[in-house]
Amino acid sequence: MNENGSDISDIRPPVKVVEWTGDERRGCLRLLEQTLLPGETKFIDCKDAPAVWEAILRLVVRGAPAIGVTAGYGMVLAAQSIPDGAEFMTKLDEAAEYLESSRPTAVNLSWAVRRVLRRAVESSGDDFDGVRRAMLAEAKDIHAEDEAMCLAIGHLASPLIARCSGVLTHCNAGALATAGIGTATAGMYVAHARGHRFGVYCDETRPILQGSRLTAWELMQAGIDTTVITDSTAGQVLREGRVQMVITGADRIAANGDAANKIGTYPLAVCAARNNVPFYVAAPYSTFDMGLACGSEIPIEQRAAEEIVEGFGRRTAPVGVKTYAPAFDVTDAELIRAIITDRGIIEPVTPENVQKIITG
Amino acid sequence: MNENGSDISDIRPPVKVVEWTGDERRGCLRLLEQTLLPGETKFIDCKDAPAVWEAILRLVVRGAPAIGVTAGYGMVLAAQSIPDGAEFMTKLDEAAEYLESSRPTAVNLSWAVRRVLRRAVESSGDDFDGVRRAMLAEAKDIHAEDEAMCLAIGHLASPLIARCSGVLTHCNAGALATAGIGTATAGMYVAHARGHRFGVYCDETRPILQGSRLTAWELMQAGIDTTVITDSTAGQVLREGRVQMVITGADRIAANGDAANKIGTYPLAVCAARNNVPFYVAAPYSTFDMGLACGSEIPIEQRAAEEIVEGFGRRTAPVGVKTYAPAFDVTDAELIRAIITDRGIIEPVTPENVQKIITG
Repeated sequence: MNENGSDISDIRPPVKVVEWTGDERRGCLRLLEQTLLPGETKFIDCKDAPAVWEAILRLVVRGAPAIGVTAGYGMVLAAQSIPDGAEFMTKLDEAAEYLESSRPTAVNLSWAVRRVLRRAVESSGDDFDGVRRAMLAEAKDIHAEDEAMCLAIGHLASPLIARCSGVLTHCNAGALATAGIGTATAGMYVAHARGHRFGVYCDETRPILQGSRLTAWELMQAGIDTTVITDSTAGQVLREGRVQMVITGADRIAANGDAANKIGTYPLAVCAARNNVPFYVAAPYSTFDMGLACGSEIPIEQRAAEEIVEGFGRRTAPVGVKTYAPAFDVTDAELIRAIITDRGIIEPVTPENVQKIITG
Repeated sequence: MNENGSDISDIRPPVKVVEWTGDERRGCLRLLEQTLLPGETKFIDCKDAPAVWEAILRLVVRGAPAIGVTAGYGMVLAAQSIPDGAEFMTKLDEAAEYLESSRPTAVNLSWAVRRVLRRAVESSGDDFDGVRRAMLAEAKDIHAEDEAMCLAIGHLASPLIARCSGVLTHCNAGALATAGIGTATAGMYVAHARGHRFGVYCDETRPILQGSRLTAWELMQAGIDTTVITDSTAGQVLREGRVQMVITGADRIAANGDAANKIGTYPLAVCAARNNVPFYVAAPYSTFDMGLACGSEIPIEQRAAEEIVEGFGRRTAPVGVKTYAPAFDVTDAELIRAIITDRGIIEPVTPENVQKIITG
């Protein structure tokens, strides 16, 4: 139900990032070829596990939730290629390891692959097509749960968006990163579908430009008024009162609510605080790592220097210059007005409130 | 005299951006071809006013002080081409207007051109070569004053830099923008020449990347330890305590000390304040516009959308997307620990202290 009490299950993402067509025997997986965005909208059909493996490696599909959903279907495609017989389960085990090797650090990938494998084991009393059918059902469950997670966040975030004439976001925590309407973008799609009109400022998000390449693209597909800015323009946008809220995703959130997200999120939160603009984080409950007491315990991955010094096909810095390229920064809980999860809104962001929503 | 009481007039910029060789009759102007940086270090010789006009237009030379010095010499080259005779002064007037048309908004350009023209008028009792000689002397005065301005700032900023293991800067307020050792960089060159060792983090400075293309290059020429970061990484650099001060230039400063500078300076100052890192501005007194009471009166130029959406030779945002591209933002005086000018240090930054240093 949305803020007006009406059903929001009819709200669709602007594009289908991951789509299964057909049955467990001959069905196949259609993926949006995200490496061609924003220039070209093309889909590719994956008919076996190697095609899925390559698509994940090549970043045809990206974003933890979308990768998980894709990998689940990848197991179904693997099962199609394995002949009926005594070695079926052994080969399925090998397929799981193979798919996991496409992006070893993607936790959702392994989680989804193992979940479909477990379902296969549980159904192994059935005939082989029965096992394949159960696996497809499990992959579709993962898909449906992801869509529902996005809708739950959208339901809670939509009233906040609806009050704004302008909203600012960073990177892509959008439909393109999930199988649904995204996380940070979810409230935008719901509010827009309900007739609210607002503009979204998208930080371009150096070095990889997910904001200008992906977020701007998907919002425009939905007809949402979209403006791209350089990351360092966000301060001026906040100062001029062009936006009434900032909302981003998160990669990992500690038990006290400190949130790691794409580099550049922290300065955004600091500038928002100075200008009395509320800063929100939208993320599924699976993003919380309750084993980490605070943000300083979150490991920060480093990116390759090339993304900074030759990120656009030509060198833009002196040969031999040093770079410093953390992939994430950490935003202090005290800078976050609320964390919007699929299990409820954490506000104010205190260890007690995180505990209550996430593990309560 | 530097902080140790020793002379600093021996401190040279890492590269000669503008250099006159020869006399008033046959001399010519050598410019560093900055459009080829950081890949190639090449100089071009300008032998007449059209060559100077084109160099200014093409951004071979950039930065208000360097453009002023260049344009001054441009008038000397114009006088070389004008034959002795009754029309000499009329032709010189036309040359002044012509040179001014290369970048009509560059205040320093017009100021330098008019200054050399005035000197010509004052010397018009001399023979024509005497007039040319006086013009060259005036152009050299402008050049020497610019070098002295940079050294004066460097003298005052050097002790601050010398206390740091790390310094952060934005854009290029460097030697490449002046005829001397720059403004924001001046203290770095002086401190380095005096044996102090520290690292400089250069924001790459989207959209035009002056930080990675120019500032990193010139600091490396001088052997200063240099690290390029994306603009949005500055927050994390400040948070981790990697720098003990931030120093930038300014494009215009109001009477209360509010400072307009390249877009991205304001968020830097806000993040510095949150992390208790002092934020400094270095600028010649000519940057102050005492007719403006505060920063909100400073007009903010808008840049072309192309710099954001196809800034690197290929399109990185959807066709038709809107952009918002202010060239500058304004940093509040209260966020600035001190403004280092060639006339003294303004600290704390109050209207009274600005008045005292700039007009006192």
